[in-house]
Parts: sequence; structure tokens; C-alpha cells
Amino acid sequence: MSTVENTAVKREFEETSDESVAINNNNGNLMKRQVIVPVTKPRIHYTPLKTGLCYDVKMRYHAKIFTSYFEYIDPHPEDPRRIYRIYKILAENGLINDPMLSGVDEIGDLMLKIPVREATRSEILEVHSKEHLDFLEKTEQMSREELLKETEKGDSVYYNNDSLSSAKSSCGGAIEACKSVVEGRVKNALAVVRPPGHHSEPESSGGFCLFSNVAVAAKNILKSYPESVRRIMILDWDIHHGNGTQKAFYNDDRVLYVSLHRFELGKYYPGTVHGQYDQTGEGKGEGFNCNITWPIGNVGDAEYMWAFEQIVMPMGREFQPDLVIISSGFDAADGDTIGQCHVTPSCYGHMTHMLKSLARGNLAVILEGGYNLDSIAKSALAVAKVLVGEPPDELPEPSKDTKPEALEMVDKIIRLQSKYWKCFKRNCGNAGCEFKEPVTENIISKNFPLQTAIRQQQLQNLLLDNYKFVTLPLVNQKLSEDTVFCSQNVYDASTLLIVVHDTPDIWAARNVITGTIEPSSSIIVDSGLQFIKWAVKRNYGVMDINIPQSLFEQDNYSAMITAQEVLLYLWDNYIKFSTDVQKIAFVGIGDASSGIIHLMGHRDTRNNVKAIISFIGSKQLKPLVPLVDESLTDWYFKNSLVFSDKNHSCWGDNENKKPRKKYGRVLRCETDGINNIVEERFEEATDFILDSFEEWSDSE
Amino acid sequence: MSTVENTAVKREFEETSDESVAINNNNGNLMKRQVIVPVTKPRIHYTPLKTGLCYDVKMRYHAKIFTSYFEYIDPHPEDPRRIYRIYKILAENGLINDPMLSGVDEIGDLMLKIPVREATRSEILEVHSKEHLDFLEKTEQMSREELLKETEKGDSVYYNNDSLSSAKSSCGGAIEACKSVVEGRVKNALAVVRPPGHHSEPESSGGFCLFSNVAVAAKNILKSYPESVRRIMILDWDIHHGNGTQKAFYNDDRVLYVSLHRFELGKYYPGTVHGQYDQTGEGKGEGFNCNITWPIGNVGDAEYMWAFEQIVMPMGREFQPDLVIISSGFDAADGDTIGQCHVTPSCYGHMTHMLKSLARGNLAVILEGGYNLDSIAKSALAVAKVLVGEPPDELPEPSKDTKPEALEMVDKIIRLQSKYWKCFKRNCGNAGCEFKEPVTENIISKNFPLQTAIRQQQLQNLLLDNYKFVTLPLVNQKLSEDTVFCSQNVYDASTLLIVVHDTPDIWAARNVITGTIEPSSSIIVDSGLQFIKWAVKRNYGVMDINIPQSLFEQDNYSAMITAQEVLLYLWDNYIKFSTDVQKIAFVGIGDASSGIIHLMGHRDTRNNVKAIISFIGSKQLKPLVPLVDESLTDWYFKNSLVFSDKNHSCWGDNENKKPRKKYGRVLRCETDGINNIVEERFEEATDFILDSFEEWSDSE
Repeated sequence: MSTVENTAVKREFEETSDESVAINNNNGNLMKRQVIVPVTKPRIHYTPLKTGLCYDVKMRYHAKIFTSYFEYIDPHPEDPRRIYRIYKILAENGLINDPMLSGVDEIGDLMLKIPVREATRSEILEVHSKEHLDFLEKTEQMSREELLKETEKGDSVYYNNDSLSSAKSSCGGAIEACKSVVEGRVKNALAVVRPPGHHSEPESSGGFCLFSNVAVAAKNILKSYPESVRRIMILDWDIHHGNGTQKAFYNDDRVLYVSLHRFELGKYYPGTVHGQYDQTGEGKGEGFNCNITWPIGNVGDAEYMWAFEQIVMPMGREFQPDLVIISSGFDAADGDTIGQCHVTPSCYGHMTHMLKSLARGNLAVILEGGYNLDSIAKSALAVAKVLVGEPPDELPEPSKDTKPEALEMVDKIIRLQSKYWKCFKRNCGNAGCEFKEPVTENIISKNFPLQTAIRQQQLQNLLLDNYKFVTLPLVNQKLSEDTVFCSQNVYDASTLLIVVHDTPDIWAARNVITGTIEPSSSIIVDSGLQFIKWAVKRNYGVMDINIPQSLFEQDNYSAMITAQEVLLYLWDNYIKFSTDVQKIAFVGIGDASSGIIHLMGHRDTRNNVKAIISFIGSKQLKPLVPLVDESLTDWYFKNSLVFSDKNHSCWGDNENKKPRKKYGRVLRCETDGINNIVEERFEEATDFILDSFEEWSDSE
Repeated sequence: MSTVENTAVKREFEETSDESVAINNNNGNLMKRQVIVPVTKPRIHYTPLKTGLCYDVKMRYHAKIFTSYFEYIDPHPEDPRRIYRIYKILAENGLINDPMLSGVDEIGDLMLKIPVREATRSEILEVHSKEHLDFLEKTEQMSREELLKETEKGDSVYYNNDSLSSAKSSCGGAIEACKSVVEGRVKNALAVVRPPGHHSEPESSGGFCLFSNVAVAAKNILKSYPESVRRIMILDWDIHHGNGTQKAFYNDDRVLYVSLHRFELGKYYPGTVHGQYDQTGEGKGEGFNCNITWPIGNVGDAEYMWAFEQIVMPMGREFQPDLVIISSGFDAADGDTIGQCHVTPSCYGHMTHMLKSLARGNLAVILEGGYNLDSIAKSALAVAKVLVGEPPDELPEPSKDTKPEALEMVDKIIRLQSKYWKCFKRNCGNAGCEFKEPVTENIISKNFPLQTAIRQQQLQNLLLDNYKFVTLPLVNQKLSEDTVFCSQNVYDASTLLIVVHDTPDIWAARNVITGTIEPSSSIIVDSGLQFIKWAVKRNYGVMDINIPQSLFEQDNYSAMITAQEVLLYLWDNYIKFSTDVQKIAFVGIGDASSGIIHLMGHRDTRNNVKAIISFIGSKQLKPLVPLVDESLTDWYFKNSLVFSDKNHSCWGDNENKKPRKKYGRVLRCETDGINNIVEERFEEATDFILDSFEEWSDSE
């Protein structure tokens, strides 16, 4: 079948012949079509198809029964005006011609009205249980009291006597929109329908949703057009996870469900584990489910464009869908107080434009959530303009860096999904990117080998050889003997610097093909060293404490416990008996810092400890727990500097936000990464120590 | 200015009022426009603009003067029919209506004819020198002999008496195409013009190009529309580097020039250093030049889509151009024998679709090279269909993996360009991705610290402790004493396994934000170890030789020299005197293998050496140089196995290609990466050794 027919473009011939054949069209139905052999030069031209539009005023009858005066002032967010406002903005901007906004049939040259009808029982039963449908059918006849009771019982959903009809129309509208695209009557389609659908699971309503509109549409399209529609991609950019849609296709390899949503460890609605990024489908459907879960709110264009270019588009192209359906909630839009995110109308336009390049342009956009009436109208307008063929508007200049949490999540998802999708192998080496021990046989030692190697290097090449450091024996037998090294003057120096650090970083060149790093062009960057050199030069006593990190452990909980135990042990067994020591400064680097803060809360060190410096980078802030007495918190705040990454999550998006005193005096650096912030703030840190020691540097 | 006006869409009002104001349009010119305040509901609608088309038959008059009969059979590739064939396919597919293909003015509803005019002297002089223009003007009056002489003198360019007129029309066509877009007369434009332009430098013709059409157009647009066009992005997907265009804007920050082209260390036309990927502009233009250089031919859709999504689009969005010009050669197209690449028409469609999302859709496509008449016609049709508003066709399923050389190049360019573009910081950590020593002060030791650490770990934890290996003293004092370790039976064993390896790989998790790797989740993978364990179990004598890699050295030349010297030294001073040894097998891993092959060519080892196994991964094949006698090559081929990566460049794209005998018996593995291929072929390698030793494993 030629490209021209594939792209669903109507050919019109100016010259006709009487030759007429029956051809097998996309839908698997035989249809008559005039096929003309031009006698001279071809004289044909394209007439581009219109964009379909589903809208019917009757879907506004589903509404919450008012029970108090306040609902007039503060109406339910799933407000009947949602669809009207979208229809209105399309008319105001000339995309449709309906001056009275009454829902006329003839709406102009750009869009074609797709009549809304109610979904049939059998269509709905393709996804939903008979019990669920029967229950909803009963709502038509229920009394006000019964309706209110069911509303109360449900999971964020309301009913009135028109709910069933609206829900069936919404569902039928979604089906008709998809059908008109698949049958080539329109080039793509927009269904402005409500109530939304993606939270409705086969057995139940939920989250403002009665029927799972998109799921019902997709199931019925697959059933009705088995030849022309073998695969459907559903892209759900509603800010909430589409649990209902996911469930309907979780073990189905014909439907790729990709959802971008807030997750926040399951705290965000619908708040089940099903929305987690590691839910990739099961059985035949394994690998055909992809949750792109924002671990934080407040994301916007940068994060969505990144996820689209890195995940959605390569995956979509590899899947080769015959139809793309957007589950188009506009609650990630800037201005939506439920979503609290900042996707601009231009960004919705760009995402639509990208998705148009899949499935030969077969794209149906079905409305889901979105509760700020202005935001959803502007967003839907941007989508509609791209559907009719306009280029998307330019994206506004990003005001912020892309959120590191989002970058990390996208990276994690790529590594996870690389099991299923060839396109992602390129991002993480052909060897695949899941972190797994490559060949057990070949690993030198399973117990933190690289860390051990680095520590040996650290000690042998520098501490031992250059500075004649010695080991300090630890009774705590869990730790290796190379954990604490000291300068030889540690017992008689009056001033002591104690550096507690994680395993130092490695700056490495990573091979893009194999995913391995190249030792020849890799360097160990030991930020603590700079402080040790500085202290040795000033004849301070120096202790260097290395806290190894745990392998495969996300939160490094045990490393922090180790740091805490080691420091308490050193304090109780060595430092507090050292009569010569008058002034002590601590420098903590990374997670290991938490050991210092723990010590400060659990022992009264105020006689000797003058300064506590922490470089935490992007690690979590640790509060001082003042077990000795309440005034410790103030003391800690006055005598500490805590350097964080520029993009540390504690800063949020409010420029004026300050962490509380119990976290110490937290300062925001200009850069990210432990090495960079040490480099940036080394002088400030050492000056702070000198001030607290009442010493001053030579230059002052 | 509202979006509607920005997207260059004409509003038509059904109701009019007499209110009429002068507004300032995009071009900075005052123009009259009817602005209507609707009395009731708005009744406006969009009329989408057409796509502009520049074509004029007169550009076919520039042609090579035939000097022999053979030129009829094998015409010059820059053939006058090139533009005709593109025009014809547009008509055949209904994009334009011109049944006689005569270049009529009224071409239908989808495209608007943009009349071609000759560029003026002053327009041309914006880019070119007066000398160059004067010279071309002289060609109009030259005799056949003079023309042939100038054709011979030039750099791949020919002249006849119509060359000037065609070149001025081609250049003027490019200007008019851009102008029509910028002025909002069309939504975008396609200029089917010749001769091409991008190789013509300010002072000279070259590479079939007389005037630098795109450069002249861009300069004049910037000059004529200083308010509305502040920045232009030129995307050059011709398979050759657009040296002329690059030169015209090399120190100009108003023009971002991005070129995708074959480079091959400068061997591919135009073959100057200017086309190298590290040429990023200078002065004000630094960072506004980006060469995406394919180090090999035979690239296609996968590589172009990858480069577009990873580099071109993020960079384009960040640049925020007001106009995008495609320097559209179709010689990367599948079927072009000069380009020898495989970009499909669909891929051209997809790239066009992506670029449409920039600059509010202001896009002008100007023809450059492309020499297969069928290929350029199909490619141009795909581009034109996307320009008029059709979605791109589906990409064909990729038949091959994306070329590793291309992935590596894209990665390299991202790291290089991250100095200039914020969008790339996300790919390689906020710290930037150029490989530089992060903080000199903090580096443990500058002399290959990580390699040293790994070697120490290797020896101490395993060889020394578990197997009681001992060091073998080397008189060669350049090498550290941990280079060669042996089992204690090495002097009396009758069978010897000698493992020569590069520093082992590290399997590491890399932090996407900071670009550092995390030692806690990183593992040293020592492929050689498996062979040592195997040999120790069989009571063989074992030698383990570690060849450190050179830091920052691309080809590891010095590491290979080291391997060669060490092996010759060991042979001459130890192995050849060992009377007990009867059977020797070598296992080489990585670049270090070349030491073995060198030894085989320089000493006659055939009495004892029974098997030579190399795992070269993606490293270059090394030939045996048979200094002892000619029959060595055959002997080496029979007694060797050389395992290469699946995607090793030696396999090219011809399935049946076999490396020559002097490289040994080279086998293609199923995977990539040294660790993976050792894992895959360990058994085959050890079986081969056993066979050659005439031993068999217990299982057989």
C-alpha cells in the first residue's frame, strides 16, 4: 500500500477512467475505490484531512450534588465547565467555527465534528466487569440520598442521575475519536470528554473516573481492526498515574502504556505500588509498561522534554504502533494547584508534535484530568493547533536547571527498560545497563574491591610514605585496619583536625559502547587530602577516617551507622583522654559527616570542639539530636558550616527557604558534586577553622 | 504579538468592523492590517499558509561541456536533471499541480510558487570577494577552451557560459525561499536549486559549488530583517562538510552551523581539518559551530536519528533561532554511490518534522548535493510532504545496530560542546564533561593512580595470598615491579600458560549528575583471572603479565610497545632457557595481545608454543610480521584464535568478509566488550588449548 494511502490522504483525480477495482483497505474490509491510470501526466493533488473533534454538551450533566453552600464558592475540581472552556477557546482562536458555542455540526475547514455517542454495554464489558457496569446503571434511578451515600463510599468520585449517561458518552467519544483516525476519516482527533477515565479500574470507579475511556477505546479498536491496528501506544501525561489503563493492559504486548506522573514514594494519588517505575508489565506484557515517575513535584518543560527525547520517542519508534492515544490530562500544566507542576502550553505542543511522528500520524488525544480552567484551555489549544498542522510555539527559556532527581530517574528507567528495548542499549553500553555483577568468576573480590583498592592506594602512596602516618587500632573488629590513620604527633598536638570521609570519588571516562570505565583515563579525587595537607603544614595533629560505603545499598544507612560508631569509639577511647588537646576541628565529607553530628549530640564536646565543617554535596541533611542539653542545637549552629550542592533538594524552589538550625549553618554552593564544592569552599572552611581556633592565616 | 500572528497564519473574519490600525509586524515594517473587535462571539478561522516552492528550469543550463563520448554514458554527477527529477516527483504525487512539468505559476492548494530571480551583486558580495564574483562574471563570455581550462584548474567544479546565470538564480532562489518564510508569505519553503553552494568559500568555487547559496541567503536575511531575525540555525545534512558555509559564519554568534558529514580523518571530501568535530567556532562565534563527523561511511537512519535527538534538537532549542535553513544535500541517501550511506526517505521526513518544531516553524530547505536521481527525488518528496503538513512515514525497522563509532562520536561531541550548551551538561554531569583533571591538589597521584590501585589489589588479594605467586624481576626498569607475577612452579612445570593483559575493566555506576563514578557500587572485572584459576587447577605453570595503559593516549601505542618489549625480554631471558617446558599457551587480553603476536613474528617459538588466544574486543587487529620465515603466517593462523567484538570494525557490513590470515583465525563474538567475550568464549578458548596440548578435559 503506498505511502499516500497510508497517510490517510484523500486523492482526488481530475481525470477519471472507468477502471475500478476492489482493494483491501487498512481496516481489513473490502471497499470499492476508484483507481485511475492517468493517460498523460498525473494530475492529482492532495487534500489534507481535517482534525477530528469530539464534544457534546450533554457530558456536562454529570455533576456533584451540592450539599453545602461552600460548594458554590469552591466547586469540585472535576467541574462540568472543563470541557466547555476547551471548546470555547478553540472557537475563540478560529480552530472551529461555532460562534454560539452550541456544539453545531459544521465547524469549519480545519476540524471535523465527530458525533459523540454512548458506549455500548458490550464495548464497556471489554474492560469492565459486569458488576461495575450494573452498579453504574443503577445510579440513574437512585435517590439523592443513595447517590450521596455512594459518593461518600467511593474513592474520590461522585454520582448523580446523569453520571451514567455522561460516562457512557465520554467513553463512546473516546472510541469514536480513535475510530475516525483509524478509518482515515480524519488525520488525527481530539476528544474533549468528561468524566475522565484513566483511574477507573475494571472493577471500580475512582479518582473522578467512572469508565476507563482510553482502555475501552483501545480494546475495542484492537478488536474491530485486527489487521490494520496491531499495536497501540498509550501515552499518559496526566500528572497522576493511570492505574486503570495500566491494569487493563498489564499483560498485553499489543499495548505499550507509558505514563509520566508524580509518584513521591507512593504518597501522590493514586498512591499504589503499581505506579512505581519498576512496574514493567507481566507475562506477555512484560516490557510493555513504562512508568516515568517524578520523585518530586514542581517539574516542568525541561523534565518532560528530556523524558520524551530520552525515553518516550525512541521507545515509541521501536514499538512501531499503528495508533497513538494520548491520555491527556492537563494537570501537569502550569497553574494547576492539584498537579503543582509547570508544563507550559508550548511544551504540550512540542510533545504532541513529537508524537505525531509516530504511527504515520495516527494520533487521538483524549481528555483526562486537569483542573485549572484557564490552564486546561490554553494547553488544549496548543495541542489542537499542532493537531491541525501548525508548528508548536517556541518553548520559553528555562528558568531553572533540569531537576537532578528527574535526570536520575530518567537514567534509572533507561537502565531498567534496556532489558526490553534495543534503543536504550546505546545509552548504557551494549552489555545492557542494569547493574549486575558481570561475571562472578572474574570479580577480584566481592567485598567492595574498588574501595579497598583506593584506600590502600591512599594510605600507601601518601599517608604512609609522605607523612609517616600510623594506623590507630580499632577494637571494633567489623572494620578493616586501614580505617583510621593518624599523624605521629596526634597524641601530643594541642590542635587536632579530624577528617571523616566516604570513599573518595573517581573521575572516570566511561566507554559508551561497553559501559565500562577506562582505568587508564580515570583518576581518584580525594577531597579530604587537601585538608590533611593543610593541617600537616600547620603542625596540627591529624586523623584520617575512612568510612566505606555499602555495596548496592541506596541509602547508605549502614555506612552512616559505621561513621557514628567509629566516632563515638574514638572519642570515648582516645580523644577525650588526650590532655594536651585544646582545640579540635572536624571536617566531614559525604555521608560520613553524619558520624560527627551524631557525636556532637551524644557527647558534650563543647570544651574542645571549635569547628564542625561538613561537605554533604547532595546527601541528606542530618539534624543534631541534642541528647546532652537543649542548648547544643544553638551551639552547633554557631560553630558549624554545612556545604550543600547548588541543587540540593533542601533548597526547594523558594529562594528564601532556609533549613532549620538543627541542621547547622547550611550554605548553598555554586556547583554540584563533593569535589567541586570542596574546591569552591576550601578557603572559606579553613578560614572558619582558623577563626574558631583564634588563629589567623599569615596573609591576614 | 499573539501566537496566532507569530505562527504566520492569516486570520479571516466573517464579520468586519471599520476599525483599522497600523501594527508593527515581525519584519519591523509597518503594515496595515484589519483588526476587528467581534461584537458577539468571535467568528474567525485559520487559513493555514502554503509551503513555498522555488524552481526554475533555467537553472538547468549550467552543465559540463562534454569532451568525450563517455560523458554521455557516465555523466557528471552534478547533473542538470537533478532539479527536474525533484520537481517531477512532487507533481506525480500531487503536491503540485503542473501536468506538463513546465514550471507554471499556479501550482495548486498546497504549495506556492516562489519566483526565482538572480541574486544581485551586492547580495553576493555580502559573502564573496569581488575577485570571485568578477571571475565568474567573466565565464559568461569565455570561449570553450577557456572554460575547459578553468574547469580543469578548479577544485571539482565546471563552467559553461550559462554557469553564472544558473549560479545567480540558485543563490537568488535560496534568498527568496528564506525571505518568503521570514515575511510570513508561506509557512515554510523548499528551494529546488542548482548548482549547490555549501563548498563555495568566499574566495573560490569548489565541490560543484559556485556561490555559497545558503550563506548568502542567511547573511542577507540577517541584514534585511534585523528585528525579526536575530539568529539563524543552518543544519547541513549533505554528506560532505559545508566548508564554505562554516567559513562564512565561523566567528559569528548569530548563525549556528551544524553539519553532519563523513570525515574519516579528513580523507573524505573536502578533506580539510575545518570539518573536524573539534572546530567549534572562534571569537564571538565560539560555540556556534558543530561538526558531527562520521568516522566511517555506511551510516544511516539510526545514526542520524541518534545525532538529531542527542545533539541537534537540544542545541537547536537552546539556540532559539528565528529561522532554520536546511542545507539539504541528499547524498547521504540510500542509493547514492558518492555518499555510500543509507538514510531513507522516511528518515529525511522525520528530521524535517523535528526541525519544524524550531523557530515557530520558520524553515527553508535549500537543495545542495545528492547524485542518485531516484534517491534525491524520493528524499525530496518525503521532505516536501512533511513541509506541507503530512506526518513523516514510519522508519523502516533497523537492520543493524547503531554503529559504535557513531555512538562514540556523538558522545565525544556532547562532551566537547557541553562547554557551550547547557542542555549537554545533563548528559555528563553538571560539572561539565570534558575530561580534565578536576582538582590537581586532590588527586592522589598523577601516575595512573587507579590502574596502580587495581594492580595492587589484584596481586595482594588473590595472586599472593591465595596462590602464593611471586614476582619475576625485570631488568627493564621502566616498569613497576608488580608487572610480572608467576606461580611458584613456573620453573619446573612442563606446561605453561602465559596471560598478558591490559589493566582490567571496572564495571561502575556513574552518577548522572556529577559525572563521577561511585566506588561503592563499582567492581573490578578481571577477565584474565579466570584463565589463571583454570591453569592453577591443572597444575600448569602460570605467568600473569600486566601491561598498564597510557593516560590520555588514544591509540595506546606505548602500551603496545611495552607489551612487545616485556614479552621479548621474558622469552630471551627466561622461557627459552627453561628446559622442562614443553608446551606453552598464550592468552592475550586487549591491546596487550599485540606483544604476543610481535613475539611470534620475531622469534621461532614453534617448538613449544601450541596455542595463542587473543581477546581483542574492539581493539585493532594486529598482523603477524613473519621475520623468521614466511611459513610463520600459516602456522600462526592454524594455532591461534582471535576473538573480536560483534561490532568490531573489521567485519564491515559484508557478512562474508573475512580478515586475512596474517591476523590469525579471527572469530566474531555475539557480544561486545572484553569481559563479555571472555565470558562467552572461555570454554572454546580452553578447549582449543587442551586440544593443542593433546590433553582433553575430564568431561570428554
